[in-house]
Amino acid sequence: MSTHPSAPSPLRVALLGGGTVGGAVARALLGRADHYAQRAGRPVQLLGVAVRDTGRPREGIPTTLLTDDPRALAEGADVVVEVMGGSEPAGELIEAALRRGAQVVTANKQLVARRGEELHALAAEHGAGLHYEAAVMAAVPVMAVVRESLAGDEVTRIRGIVNGSTNYVLDLVGREGVPFADAVRQAGELGYLEADPTEDLQGLDAAAKIAILARTAWGVPAPLEEVEVTGIADLTDADFADAARQGGVLKLVASAERDTDGRVRASVRPLILPAEDPLAQARGGTNVVELEAALAGPVRLVGAGAGGDQTASAVLGDVVRAGLAAARR
Amino acid sequence: MSTHPSAPSPLRVALLGGGTVGGAVARALLGRADHYAQRAGRPVQLLGVAVRDTGRPREGIPTTLLTDDPRALAEGADVVVEVMGGSEPAGELIEAALRRGAQVVTANKQLVARRGEELHALAAEHGAGLHYEAAVMAAVPVMAVVRESLAGDEVTRIRGIVNGSTNYVLDLVGREGVPFADAVRQAGELGYLEADPTEDLQGLDAAAKIAILARTAWGVPAPLEEVEVTGIADLTDADFADAARQGGVLKLVASAERDTDGRVRASVRPLILPAEDPLAQARGGTNVVELEAALAGPVRLVGAGAGGDQTASAVLGDVVRAGLAAARR
Repeated sequence: MSTHPSAPSPLRVALLGGGTVGGAVARALLGRADHYAQRAGRPVQLLGVAVRDTGRPREGIPTTLLTDDPRALAEGADVVVEVMGGSEPAGELIEAALRRGAQVVTANKQLVARRGEELHALAAEHGAGLHYEAAVMAAVPVMAVVRESLAGDEVTRIRGIVNGSTNYVLDLVGREGVPFADAVRQAGELGYLEADPTEDLQGLDAAAKIAILARTAWGVPAPLEEVEVTGIADLTDADFADAARQGGVLKLVASAERDTDGRVRASVRPLILPAEDPLAQARGGTNVVELEAALAGPVRLVGAGAGGDQTASAVLGDVVRAGLAAARR
Repeated sequence: MSTHPSAPSPLRVALLGGGTVGGAVARALLGRADHYAQRAGRPVQLLGVAVRDTGRPREGIPTTLLTDDPRALAEGADVVVEVMGGSEPAGELIEAALRRGAQVVTANKQLVARRGEELHALAAEHGAGLHYEAAVMAAVPVMAVVRESLAGDEVTRIRGIVNGSTNYVLDLVGREGVPFADAVRQAGELGYLEADPTEDLQGLDAAAKIAILARTAWGVPAPLEEVEVTGIADLTDADFADAARQGGVLKLVASAERDTDGRVRASVRPLILPAEDPLAQARGGTNVVELEAALAGPVRLVGAGAGGDQTASAVLGDVVRAGLAAARR
């Protein structure tokens, strides 16, 4: 990058995935190079972007950076950013990077929720790093707050609206009186729900998030399969009428606390909240999480918990973090 | 501490100040030693607590730890925690610690707002650390979010209700129709205002916070004297009637953005906000800050922005952070 003898070597970043999130990450790294160099303490070099179809043009990414070989790309990197999603090959690529002692940044919620213990153990064994702020509520920085800001306190309870798609549906029914089935259809048409909306409607997306948060807050395993999950798929218009009669608001609430044995108890379920509950006030796709701590009391974080740019913001924050961690090794 | 040859040396902490915040910090460090050892990676040893009157008993602090010589106490510490407040001797004690290359944790908002540039320069020169999450909104982790979580994004605007005392007063008038002068008196009686309420009522407390936040967000000097400040002291009941007639809510809003030259423009002033503005909904002593970023969009943090335990929570988080930073040197 430079012929100056004391110039720091660049931080080499491999980006696995060139979709909405990957595209935004690439454009930021390429377009604001000075910013990232300053934050990471050395130039940040985007080695390449691994995509399935290198023939398809991608806005803001030079075609010379595209490759269809994620393995080869990741091998030369200090920081491997996984934003391809799915369990494989994402899982094996992350595993290989950790075994090499690299820093890994991922937005892959299901992967972290299912294999977090194992991946953290691998990272510890090989002096690698594993960062996944983007996996939980996108740019709402709940992971960092639980892990670092409240590190001197004692988190006693976590409670939140952590799935924007279902909140959008519930809000449409509760506030505007749209029949439930119509609201689900409308959310689908507006892109609030995936083509296969099961993850959202059955509460599985929220379950993965609360499992990750619980593990981070208490440093103990919080297996995804132990989260008690009830989604919103089986709600009926009568349930909403019930909530309204009580002056309450129906919300899909994810929560976690520890029982007296120190074991994590986590659940996702539709609850009727009093209208004045801060969680009841989450509108549309908004996410809100309330962290209750022994000294701090309740601290709430609110924002868009999804979206390409929002997820990219969290990924880029973790790239800076990973860069600083790599420099310390 | 241990005769095991490979046991890590303890992290030596000097606590300057044994008031409400200092007492809570001391009790936590002494009562949850295992927790802090685990978080900091080595035992955390509270060397002592410097107070003005060593004869006065302090709940949960053994009298053997009390000293009236903060200088001597600080000299032997890896981490110097300053929670005595005021400009001197706090300032010179912090300066001396930074010159020794120590990690400093402080909750001293006015000191950081006035001397932040100089203290950061000193810290950089001597490889020291300066941490002050507690100086802005207590346990609401806005400093870490601005500095780290949004490090990969671009903060475009900061806007918040950052002074709980004035918000308590404004809320009492706006919601309950208490005459302004009575509300100020009532807030004083309930301990929401200091004996000398000037800092709060004139907006100086909020000005110090927004100056610190702006400096952190944009890495450029944001001198306290350049913050445009109007407090609430000169408001009249007619102003509140005006706000109500417009369907709005009168709030003391601190905000900061950069102008086209990259210069920070920060202000504190009473504004009539639309009722649906998230800042308008802050009740009583609650603080809320909205960080607007290019990719993340608006992210809001909400919580108690003051209080002994809440401030202690932030101080303790910084002690862990400082401990990890000390280990890296």
